[in-house]
Amino acid sequence: MPTGIPPGSLEPVLAWIDARHEAAIADLQRFCRQPSVAAQGWGMDEMADLVVEALEECGASTSLVPTAGFPVVVGRLKGAGSRHLAIYNHYDVQPPEPLEAWSSPPFEAQIRDGVLYARGVADNKGNLVARLWAVRAWRAVHGTLPCNITFLVEGEEEIGSPHLAEFAAANQELVRADACLWEAGYRDPGGAPVLYAGLKGMLYVELHTRGVAFDLHSSQAPLAPSAAWRLVAALQSLRDPDGRVCIPGFYDAVRPPTERERELMRRYPIDGETMRRLWQVERLLGSSDDPAALTEQLLFEPTCNICGLWSGYSGSGTKTILPATAGAKLDFRLVPDQDPATILDLLRRHLADQGFGDVEVIELEGSERPAQSPVDTPLMEALISSAQRVYGAAPRVLPRMAATGPMEQLCQRYGVPAIGGAGVGHPGSRVHAPDENIRIEDFILAIKHIAALLLDFAG
Amino acid sequence: MPTGIPPGSLEPVLAWIDARHEAAIADLQRFCRQPSVAAQGWGMDEMADLVVEALEECGASTSLVPTAGFPVVVGRLKGAGSRHLAIYNHYDVQPPEPLEAWSSPPFEAQIRDGVLYARGVADNKGNLVARLWAVRAWRAVHGTLPCNITFLVEGEEEIGSPHLAEFAAANQELVRADACLWEAGYRDPGGAPVLYAGLKGMLYVELHTRGVAFDLHSSQAPLAPSAAWRLVAALQSLRDPDGRVCIPGFYDAVRPPTERERELMRRYPIDGETMRRLWQVERLLGSSDDPAALTEQLLFEPTCNICGLWSGYSGSGTKTILPATAGAKLDFRLVPDQDPATILDLLRRHLADQGFGDVEVIELEGSERPAQSPVDTPLMEALISSAQRVYGAAPRVLPRMAATGPMEQLCQRYGVPAIGGAGVGHPGSRVHAPDENIRIEDFILAIKHIAALLLDFAG
Repeated sequence: MPTGIPPGSLEPVLAWIDARHEAAIADLQRFCRQPSVAAQGWGMDEMADLVVEALEECGASTSLVPTAGFPVVVGRLKGAGSRHLAIYNHYDVQPPEPLEAWSSPPFEAQIRDGVLYARGVADNKGNLVARLWAVRAWRAVHGTLPCNITFLVEGEEEIGSPHLAEFAAANQELVRADACLWEAGYRDPGGAPVLYAGLKGMLYVELHTRGVAFDLHSSQAPLAPSAAWRLVAALQSLRDPDGRVCIPGFYDAVRPPTERERELMRRYPIDGETMRRLWQVERLLGSSDDPAALTEQLLFEPTCNICGLWSGYSGSGTKTILPATAGAKLDFRLVPDQDPATILDLLRRHLADQGFGDVEVIELEGSERPAQSPVDTPLMEALISSAQRVYGAAPRVLPRMAATGPMEQLCQRYGVPAIGGAGVGHPGSRVHAPDENIRIEDFILAIKHIAALLLDFAG
Repeated sequence: MPTGIPPGSLEPVLAWIDARHEAAIADLQRFCRQPSVAAQGWGMDEMADLVVEALEECGASTSLVPTAGFPVVVGRLKGAGSRHLAIYNHYDVQPPEPLEAWSSPPFEAQIRDGVLYARGVADNKGNLVARLWAVRAWRAVHGTLPCNITFLVEGEEEIGSPHLAEFAAANQELVRADACLWEAGYRDPGGAPVLYAGLKGMLYVELHTRGVAFDLHSSQAPLAPSAAWRLVAALQSLRDPDGRVCIPGFYDAVRPPTERERELMRRYPIDGETMRRLWQVERLLGSSDDPAALTEQLLFEPTCNICGLWSGYSGSGTKTILPATAGAKLDFRLVPDQDPATILDLLRRHLADQGFGDVEVIELEGSERPAQSPVDTPLMEALISSAQRVYGAAPRVLPRMAATGPMEQLCQRYGVPAIGGAGVGHPGSRVHAPDENIRIEDFILAIKHIAALLLDFAG
């Protein structure tokens, strides 16, 4: 152990990080250059091995826990204090398509003007690597960590974590902790980190329609039932132009915000004007311009979204066919206490009631229950104080994120409060989209934030 | 010239054809193995050269007439009589996609169980080759033809013949004839050839919607306008579930059938039951089961058809995005006297009136005016008598086909009556679709039908 350094002090840890920007960035590029698309089964073994290797470089004792799908990488580190922090991340990424829309290849990890572009860099390889480097820094400077840590890094988050509930149930000793630091985090347009204590759930389905047995010459259109028109009509029955879902019973289980949750949304509202500018739209959905109302809409409204739509010929020029089949991918983002299985039943019943009983509804992997931890917990307090120190600004605390993750089956079910928000993202990170990116500056800040958090959480 | 053959007699011509099935089939495969996809600009020069070569093999004096697009191949043959028949065909084919849906590669021209599978074999390389072999047979047996012939073989039919009107206007001496034999023909489910004296017109458009500036993580769905939902709503405003188009003014110029046209439809109705069985659907569009009413619906109803639909992610598994753009390809099949330019205006006005002024409407190449020749002409009489002789059954005569072609700009505008229906297709030919095919038997019959027609038309 180096001498002359006050035991347990943060400053030399932050200085160590500042002296190693280049190595940390290079390590992040190493992670981003390894494709790991769970939906396509691309590069997953290689990526899991890389996570094991990186955890071992940080001094963790690791295991690769098999599941019926891709394995969970577990890394355990003993700390000086008794507190125990679980850290949840995932090593899989979204598919990179459409490839032609990327400014540089999605797995090249190009840096341009201080921004790193890569599929998965914001969601969430950047976060995982930042957390590993915070651990590295503490161990390099002090030889130990302020608290115990268990890294839980799964490989199926982007396909709905279909095997994580089984993993958690079978490995409860690995999952139990005083709190769990969730995977993702973003700075808001003003630069403040946004912290959150819950996530939405999800139901992901495909709708398939079939008209005639094979694609016809479109001159048969006066007589032939069209799968494409059928799909359009079935979809149109699901949602009104303001985004309200028209499935009877859809909103029955929706739990309104508590007074404390409302207070947080009034205090830390989202910035609708910046979203309009960034997305280049004249107005957002819904009718309110009140920031707290917009925030409640984003965080507490469940949705029905079209992720994809296809039928017939979409190539260049003209092709005159009446397509035999059509399909759509839909995600429903759910809020407490909506249950994906119930919503699937309601969807099927609605389609049947509307005369669309012929529309096939296929549930894909990706169903998740919503989760909500109490907002006021020791981990939240530590995240706030450490963010204040590193970012020089008060973080914004919101009851939940609008995104989805396996928080219910990994944490809530075992009484572990989960909080997210220490991360590398910014509002233009284009998560799940072409040109996904993070600012290098945010990556370095995130390393420091985690380094400070470990100290504050240890208490 | 061979001796012992009665001058101008048909029987030895038919016998010559029967002795050369294999050579004719091999020639058809040569045509089908050359891709010629106008929409994709694939193989077009090579195909035009092949048509020139084949016409010269038949003794025609040929020219490759340039247009602003792909050239028109013209082949002229002198006959013994004074009558002059124009024969219109096209050497381009539809795109072969989706490739994975073909049982054998679309340009391999595989023969299985007496059926030849290839993109373009029914529409319309089989017809062109059959006509060339009829000419070949007459010249081989008798040294001359019964009548004069001008082959007009264009390369842009499948993209709406955008340059054929200019070609015809600039080359009126090539276009003028006593009548024009149109490109395509099909046997009905009972085996009778179907003859027709008109075609529908077409308007082909793409609709494009745009929501946010780039694909978003779908957690933003409570606030972000969706291009996919916008497209669904705009499309849904265009058509009712029975296929009736909801654009005000759409039906204003529709000319009802004449009494003679109605008589033909009552006499030669289509067979709805066979269509239902072939297409594997429980019911056809509309409410009538009356065969004459179904026939009128097919031939006299204009349509709005979705040829293609796309938005977001359509690959395997889940991807949770809110797509920035969505699009659809639509064809409107038009009947006399609907005009594609007027219909385009009405479509734009309707979308604007319905609050969809943001939906971009792009007209693609492919607009055609509808055309209608008188039913009772010498070419029709010759087609009937020759079909009776070759098929041993009375052909069915209908006022028009439900399909589209450049009949107005090539024939009607110059007072040339055009009749179609001598062809190689059958009801399961899957025109424009995967596994397009013809029965070899129909190909041989079509050669004979044209051989007989040339004699009967010469009078």
